[in-house]
Amino acid sequence: MSPAPINLAQKLSTFHEHYQPRTVGQFNGHDLMVVKAKGPFNWHRHDETDDFFLVLSGRLRILLRDGEVALGPGDLYVVPKGVEHCPVADEEAHILLIEPQGTPNTGDPATAAARVLI
Amino acid sequence: MSPAPINLAQKLSTFHEHYQPRTVGQFNGHDLMVVKAKGPFNWHRHDETDDFFLVLSGRLRILLRDGEVALGPGDLYVVPKGVEHCPVADEEAHILLIEPQGTPNTGDPATAAARVLI
Repeated sequence: MSPAPINLAQKLSTFHEHYQPRTVGQFNGHDLMVVKAKGPFNWHRHDETDDFFLVLSGRLRILLRDGEVALGPGDLYVVPKGVEHCPVADEEAHILLIEPQGTPNTGDPATAAARVLI
Repeated sequence: MSPAPINLAQKLSTFHEHYQPRTVGQFNGHDLMVVKAKGPFNWHRHDETDDFFLVLSGRLRILLRDGEVALGPGDLYVVPKGVEHCPVADEEAHILLIEPQGTPNTGDPATAAARVLI
């Protein structure tokens, strides 16, 4: 048996939609997800979990109520739980996200993207 | 306030030792770590946690008792908890690791590298 690794660029090549994360694996009760970001997302917070962002390509700004974090390729940032934030990608950016299984990406189950495994 | 992102390449540039992970952040009770791998590590397993590997540069083979996983840049693999494995880097590889805080990297507290925050 030779298990296959998960190639993030290959996974990202299989879809085009923005802010529709795809789940590519699991780790300790979390979903490992890739997402294409472009434009502003929404202001939200997660009261029960930190929010992990690793930029794979492109640039992402994470707006906070008192500043912003500017991320490029190879930059990682963790938004602490309970902290309001709004991701904005001025050009398309590709991102690795890690969130507990079932976390609504918008912070609100009513508006959250479905979890899609690829 | 403009919080700084964590640049993984910059963090990796600050040390040279192999198989001595540096902690660069925290996420939901886990340490986010970068490590430089070269040569074989040791056979071990973690009975209480999955083991997350994302190759940032170079190549890493993860030997399993019944095969191996070959990883290049942008490849991710999660060794399920309880599964014996032995990472091997034929040339130096740079890796993002995620493990619960306090997990011994060798699977054994007696031989584990200290957790060093940078």
